[in-house]
Amino acid sequence: MNEEDGFSLQNARVAVIGLGLMGGSLAMALKGKCAELLAVVRNPTTREQALSQGVVSQADSDPSRILPQADVIVLSTPIPAILDWLERLPQYAPQSCVVLDMGSTKQAIVEAMARLPERFLPLGGHPICGKERLSLENAEPDLYRNAPFVLTPVPHRQSARASQAAFQIIQAIGANPIWIDAAAHDRILAATSHLPFLIACALTLATPSECAPLVGPGFRSTSRLASTPASMMLGILQTNRQNILDALARFRENVSQLEDALRRGDEERVQTLLDEARSRRDRLIEE
Amino acid sequence: MNEEDGFSLQNARVAVIGLGLMGGSLAMALKGKCAELLAVVRNPTTREQALSQGVVSQADSDPSRILPQADVIVLSTPIPAILDWLERLPQYAPQSCVVLDMGSTKQAIVEAMARLPERFLPLGGHPICGKERLSLENAEPDLYRNAPFVLTPVPHRQSARASQAAFQIIQAIGANPIWIDAAAHDRILAATSHLPFLIACALTLATPSECAPLVGPGFRSTSRLASTPASMMLGILQTNRQNILDALARFRENVSQLEDALRRGDEERVQTLLDEARSRRDRLIEE
Repeated sequence: MNEEDGFSLQNARVAVIGLGLMGGSLAMALKGKCAELLAVVRNPTTREQALSQGVVSQADSDPSRILPQADVIVLSTPIPAILDWLERLPQYAPQSCVVLDMGSTKQAIVEAMARLPERFLPLGGHPICGKERLSLENAEPDLYRNAPFVLTPVPHRQSARASQAAFQIIQAIGANPIWIDAAAHDRILAATSHLPFLIACALTLATPSECAPLVGPGFRSTSRLASTPASMMLGILQTNRQNILDALARFRENVSQLEDALRRGDEERVQTLLDEARSRRDRLIEE
Repeated sequence: MNEEDGFSLQNARVAVIGLGLMGGSLAMALKGKCAELLAVVRNPTTREQALSQGVVSQADSDPSRILPQADVIVLSTPIPAILDWLERLPQYAPQSCVVLDMGSTKQAIVEAMARLPERFLPLGGHPICGKERLSLENAEPDLYRNAPFVLTPVPHRQSARASQAAFQIIQAIGANPIWIDAAAHDRILAATSHLPFLIACALTLATPSECAPLVGPGFRSTSRLASTPASMMLGILQTNRQNILDALARFRENVSQLEDALRRGDEERVQTLLDEARSRRDRLIEE
């Protein structure tokens, strides 16, 4: 295929780098919908599992045996590894191909994508779904169904072929594409995802162990994200620090307002804040 | 029955005051396991619904038509109404009976219970379960299954009959009894339930509306409790204020530690805190 042809997922060989929860679920969801599924996987157990379960037809730890075959490369590792792969792709893939990622922050990644040689057609991606249990064992073909899938243009690297590839993949896995530029994405995700993670951690750290017998569904839900492995979160915090600090400042301000009203015993003000929170949540979330 | 007899749930008439999520689920779970289920219900729609669905066999807005028949009275209204009912019970119920409540704070309630005339056998209760959608429509007979059900002694009012009644009810609905005194209960629940609620509210209030299209499962879970109606939460915040303020101070301290490490770019410290949060959550929650 070349840049001028329309992209056809059915004829495309898709190489996934990293078969964890996200990459594994993507491969499962794409099964039968593209010409071949390949994977670069470092962990030997995961590699054997992926091959024996038929998640992909080729899996190798050596990228030079997989990447030259790919029409589309999907990076689905933690962010520091995505950045690292973007520097090393040129040495493994001599051909023209679409490069898509699934990292949870976009600014640093699309900047690195912009430095790829011309033959690569890069596009930033971020599916808004997942769970706190990672790894291939927890992967499922329906993970992406009905989830928003953010697409982020790479500055000066618009490519119809990359957009077609991304749209066809997103359609095939049942997600909903949504274009957002990297800066807005990172600002919004700081509020909707990275801040909630830090809050869940701070809540958990603030909970004495005497509480264990009385932990109920409320604590379980509010603290859930604290079970996300640090390995996944560190790169996110690192590459979105300022937005997260801004979101934290807004959050602290709202905590203070609630705390002040409570301390003063100002029932009316407390009620106003609680009612506002409830109706704002209804507007933010359509359930 | 009198105080000397062993209590038998099968022969007991149980009157539930308030048929919302908790009271309604209790009645559904007790169906067929006691002599009769009665209810005091103010809202006419709820009353008709309860009778037509056979949740209880008698429902009335007038407590003087229901309460004199009861061997056990279960108070399952918001806390301010529980405190109010405890003052008014003596004028409606001339007989000896067990009085149990399901309020989410215990200190103020057991203090009010201690002031009941001698013929009443009071015991504080708090089932650790529920959901953010209240009212009888959301009630379900399995709500209490496997949930901890706190029992809180009323100072100077130990009663074997009240304990027997509570244990038999708890067993009948499939919950697990756990004795905790009111002060410890309120301190622990401030950390595991009331603080998470306030955090969910502050998070929601701190989230700009531009975020709506990118709200994912993380935000949904962390903010879930913000959808709890203020009508239920105000009495809790009011009767457990100092413990909640203490828990908030601990939480703010942990937010600051995370924030400082993030601002300084101290990856190692961030990782330590995240790892600690994750393993602490594993210890607090057995899933």
